[in-house]
Amino acid sequence: MRRAETCGPVAIQGYAGSFSEAAARAYFSPETQLVSQADFKALFAAVEDGSCACGVVPIENSLMGSIHENYDLLLQSDVHIVGELKLRIVHNLIVNPGVQLADIRYIASQPPALAQCIRFIDSLAGAQTIAADDTAGAVKELAASGARDRGAIAGARAAAAYGLEILVSGIEDAPHNFTRFLVVSRRAAPAPAEPAKTTLVFGLKDVPGALCRSLAAFAERGINLLKIESRPMSERPWEYVFYLDLEGHLEQAVCAQAVEHLQATAEFVRILGSYRQGDTVDDLR
Amino acid sequence: MRRAETCGPVAIQGYAGSFSEAAARAYFSPETQLVSQADFKALFAAVEDGSCACGVVPIENSLMGSIHENYDLLLQSDVHIVGELKLRIVHNLIVNPGVQLADIRYIASQPPALAQCIRFIDSLAGAQTIAADDTAGAVKELAASGARDRGAIAGARAAAAYGLEILVSGIEDAPHNFTRFLVVSRRAAPAPAEPAKTTLVFGLKDVPGALCRSLAAFAERGINLLKIESRPMSERPWEYVFYLDLEGHLEQAVCAQAVEHLQATAEFVRILGSYRQGDTVDDLR
Repeated sequence: MRRAETCGPVAIQGYAGSFSEAAARAYFSPETQLVSQADFKALFAAVEDGSCACGVVPIENSLMGSIHENYDLLLQSDVHIVGELKLRIVHNLIVNPGVQLADIRYIASQPPALAQCIRFIDSLAGAQTIAADDTAGAVKELAASGARDRGAIAGARAAAAYGLEILVSGIEDAPHNFTRFLVVSRRAAPAPAEPAKTTLVFGLKDVPGALCRSLAAFAERGINLLKIESRPMSERPWEYVFYLDLEGHLEQAVCAQAVEHLQATAEFVRILGSYRQGDTVDDLR
Repeated sequence: MRRAETCGPVAIQGYAGSFSEAAARAYFSPETQLVSQADFKALFAAVEDGSCACGVVPIENSLMGSIHENYDLLLQSDVHIVGELKLRIVHNLIVNPGVQLADIRYIASQPPALAQCIRFIDSLAGAQTIAADDTAGAVKELAASGARDRGAIAGARAAAAYGLEILVSGIEDAPHNFTRFLVVSRRAAPAPAEPAKTTLVFGLKDVPGALCRSLAAFAERGINLLKIESRPMSERPWEYVFYLDLEGHLEQAVCAQAVEHLQATAEFVRILGSYRQGDTVDDLR
């Protein structure tokens, strides 16, 4: 894929060597400066206040599902979605140089990563797992400790970032493990190249059939829905907002008409962005 | 509300004093035996293999959203939903007897509970938070340690369970904090009392408009949808299954017809249960 240029630094969450870094490196041109943020809230704030030109945020994993904090932050923040990227997640057992498989007593990583490699972990008789906040953070700590009785599970980039070795690559149970990242910016993207996708969020009026009537705006026009995600409204228990991904962009008349139709039936509609559907890329091996 | 009888023990997840225990105590008659399970997977397994007659599982919180692990376990397990209950969540600062507010340097709880009390925590100058696996577990540990420089955040029941004191009650930021629990069993419920609710899960055929065509089965018949939740299909990236809560039960002709209509358009449909819509209850204060 052709890499994007930006007019400023790009915000990512987490340590060097993270999957977010891999996604940002795959999306943006090599000279782009990446700025680590402490958490997703800080990432969105850095894009909103202009200190970063763009941000790269994970929004969903094909095994684990949506990352709700980032759905909520999309609604709360004044940013636009301008692109996306799907990263194939390959997990590796990473060790201090020279450590052998027979030496491993402990394996550290983020709990979802440990869960995704459970068959491999079970094959190492008696190895215990240690929960970490972050996959790359587990590798960083392992390097700092110099420990020879343990490994960490993370992407290949984390081993390179901290000078450690990949002892076993591709240890995830399921081969279909992808994370979808969104690229967000203060400014909306120009009309995107095909195939395009539009993401919007809406709230329902509280009447029977309201959800179906809202979705009819798209079905009646043959517009394909790629995803629907519901999130609670915190002030109104058991009411929800809905995030839709649909095929097409808003400069197409049929999409613009569908959104007008939705606006007539919904309580509110906010367009989060029209952008080119993302490529799927492999991380470093 | 009238409490339900069971013909055997009831599985809950977590320690004595948990919100799950509060929900089970509110739902079932007082002599019911509750059996703690290590995790939700073990809870579903105990109901499936008949060692427990029922299980009580949290499915969604009105501030945080759905508990996806339990949605996935509903689909993976051979159980039926037979009831529900909405529990108002009241958080308390719990301490060893005699500890004063001015003594508090650390506050332990599950991260979502800490997040829900952030204004109160910020009002205690310099108090640091400590992440725990479980609200009741944080209280259990506090009692075991006897520590006098810290508190834990949990429900009132946890203070009673471990002989500690509630120093401040109702410390949550948002008053609209409810958790919805489902009651699951190996056997389907008899035709439930009104108002009834039915939960089902379905997969889409991969054609444009498939989601709206599926929901039309209910909209055309004026059947109100109370909730839609999408979850990824792990073998098929970017495809989803949908969980629907709808008003009515399957012994009503209009609901049965709507489900037949859905079966004709969906790839698969599984009924998870028809049950009486749950009451909202307060925990002990």
